[in-house]
Amino acid sequence: MELHHVGIAVTDLEAAARPYLELGYVREAEGTVESQGVRVVMLRSGSSRVELLEALRPDSAVARFIEKRGPGVHHLAFHTPDIRAALARLEAQGAPLVDREPRPGFGGHLVAFVHPRWAGGVLVELVQE
Amino acid sequence: MELHHVGIAVTDLEAAARPYLELGYVREAEGTVESQGVRVVMLRSGSSRVELLEALRPDSAVARFIEKRGPGVHHLAFHTPDIRAALARLEAQGAPLVDREPRPGFGGHLVAFVHPRWAGGVLVELVQE
Repeated sequence: MELHHVGIAVTDLEAAARPYLELGYVREAEGTVESQGVRVVMLRSGSSRVELLEALRPDSAVARFIEKRGPGVHHLAFHTPDIRAALARLEAQGAPLVDREPRPGFGGHLVAFVHPRWAGGVLVELVQE
Repeated sequence: MELHHVGIAVTDLEAAARPYLELGYVREAEGTVESQGVRVVMLRSGSSRVELLEALRPDSAVARFIEKRGPGVHHLAFHTPDIRAALARLEAQGAPLVDREPRPGFGGHLVAFVHPRWAGGVLVELVQE
């Protein structure tokens, strides 16, 4: 698997996008994921992507993350051609899955999260496009 | 600029590498950067890289980061063909540079850091290979 995107928790999408636009990133997509309570701006430069996440509600995971740790990197997402097979393999190895079944994520992709204790404090997302 | 690597502060390089090896990453390089007080394992999958950083000394930046925030994503590094030109452009825009001059980083690259307040809590590194 390769990195699909770096997810970043922000308080203001427009202000947060500015440094990445300065580095040469362009807007690839934007929208809302109601189920996760976030507004998203996806930025892209070549094969690398930065996903900016702004909370829609104070009880969303991103809002709670910012309350606890401040804005910053929220997760690393890796793409896989077969998310169900990847989840089954990780589960068989005892990885602490947040989602045992994939769910719809931004851009119509299937996504699933693995608890940060699996990867030394890093929240890992699997993405099947 | 595209993402060069994601830098991750860890307490144990070997344990920290395991999940990324499971995701299909391979060891690209390893070594020590004495000036920054870190041991490094660089992992690669296709065009994406994860740089694991373990402190050599309790007063290194990585040790202080872990003391304050726990292990996790420490910085995002972007590659540039001309780091001096990139630094001059950022400085002219008032970006809070940690390094006004590039310094030697891991793998013999030239690197420079921009303070996390520039990019909403994310420590940004520029890398010229």
